[in-house]
Amino acid sequence: MRIAVLGTGGGGRAHASKLMELGHDVCVGTRDSQVTLGRTEPDFMGIEPFGQWLAGYPGIDLMNFADAAAGAELVVNGIDGANAVRVLTGIARHLDGKTIMDYAVPYIYNPERAHPWPTPWGVMPALDPVDSDSLGERIQRALPRAKVVKAGVTQEQETVVDPRAVGGGHHTLFIAGDHADAKEQVTALLRSYGWEDVLDLGPIVSARALEMYAHLHSAIQFALGGGRFGVKVVR
Amino acid sequence: MRIAVLGTGGGGRAHASKLMELGHDVCVGTRDSQVTLGRTEPDFMGIEPFGQWLAGYPGIDLMNFADAAAGAELVVNGIDGANAVRVLTGIARHLDGKTIMDYAVPYIYNPERAHPWPTPWGVMPALDPVDSDSLGERIQRALPRAKVVKAGVTQEQETVVDPRAVGGGHHTLFIAGDHADAKEQVTALLRSYGWEDVLDLGPIVSARALEMYAHLHSAIQFALGGGRFGVKVVR
Repeated sequence: MRIAVLGTGGGGRAHASKLMELGHDVCVGTRDSQVTLGRTEPDFMGIEPFGQWLAGYPGIDLMNFADAAAGAELVVNGIDGANAVRVLTGIARHLDGKTIMDYAVPYIYNPERAHPWPTPWGVMPALDPVDSDSLGERIQRALPRAKVVKAGVTQEQETVVDPRAVGGGHHTLFIAGDHADAKEQVTALLRSYGWEDVLDLGPIVSARALEMYAHLHSAIQFALGGGRFGVKVVR
Repeated sequence: MRIAVLGTGGGGRAHASKLMELGHDVCVGTRDSQVTLGRTEPDFMGIEPFGQWLAGYPGIDLMNFADAAAGAELVVNGIDGANAVRVLTGIARHLDGKTIMDYAVPYIYNPERAHPWPTPWGVMPALDPVDSDSLGERIQRALPRAKVVKAGVTQEQETVVDPRAVGGGHHTLFIAGDHADAKEQVTALLRSYGWEDVLDLGPIVSARALEMYAHLHSAIQFALGGGRFGVKVVR
């Protein structure tokens, strides 16, 4: 399948490389591919420049967002929460009828717009929107002819694409969305990643619950001293 | 140990009956014990009148909040989120130096103050505070000489007091608080309930993460068709 991964961060890279390994035709979308390829320094998170990473994955194409989306049958949204709605709205016509798997958390790092938590381990970004709305719903409203599936938001994407690396894969991944066919498509993709327990939380409104879990994910990770983990729904 | 459970709802009853079974000296606190005992109809949730329930547990005392707190070594707060800070502040002098285990979620049911979610299964109450503050922190700030431990907020209290009823007890309970000795006391209580995996999320600020998980808990429960479940941190 031709799959576009939008965004060049660590999450997007995890999906792109795994999708290539699974035999898909993968392209990565970015704002300006020449600018992205021109970077030679690690970003503020210490992630290696995209061009350097891409050299290890011949066969993955880098394109501008619109071109990447235009040719894709399925889209994975890895654009950060602060920019996702704006970017996706700008390429909306290339997303008509397509499934968008969205794992973004709407973290706000701007202290003038938000209220970062002071914690012993540093600063926790706030969420915007929170409780009364969600990024997943905003994307679906901005793209009424696309089919948004919130999925993988409760994990590092490195775990989403390789669930068996944590606890033998015996943990749970949640999805939410208004379109049953799109949820089937995303579930099939997640099963190909190795997920055995994919729990459908119903309509896209449940994206609120998934995004609001982000802080508990962080708190658990800090409590464990870093590293990867999963949550299993025991029933 | 002399333990006061504040609040006469289902959660408070679960703790009170389990604590009695474990051999503790248990009293339940309420606003006005005569009013509480005078009720003869189920409440709006369909829960049987407290007096009727209490008849099955000879040995559990019902007292007004202040009297219950005054005699207790440990306090379990089962007062609903909308009223907890006001009630606890009113009896603050009886809580000095004491550990308060708080499992409340600050649900707001008043549609003029909040934004309930429309969901296919009904209406989801909003949280207030959310993200920038938490009920756990508010209680700790209101009672600077007490030791608040947020615990059991991610579960029905029936599961908190009987973890082995779900998945053999192989799931995780989270705690957070600023006082190490109080967290040890609460952890010991939770172990006596049957918890094997009690994960300390650090200071009381992590109450935000625990309270914000409430919506995911509800969404999972609806997805499973009701009933009880646990979440296990798989690492």
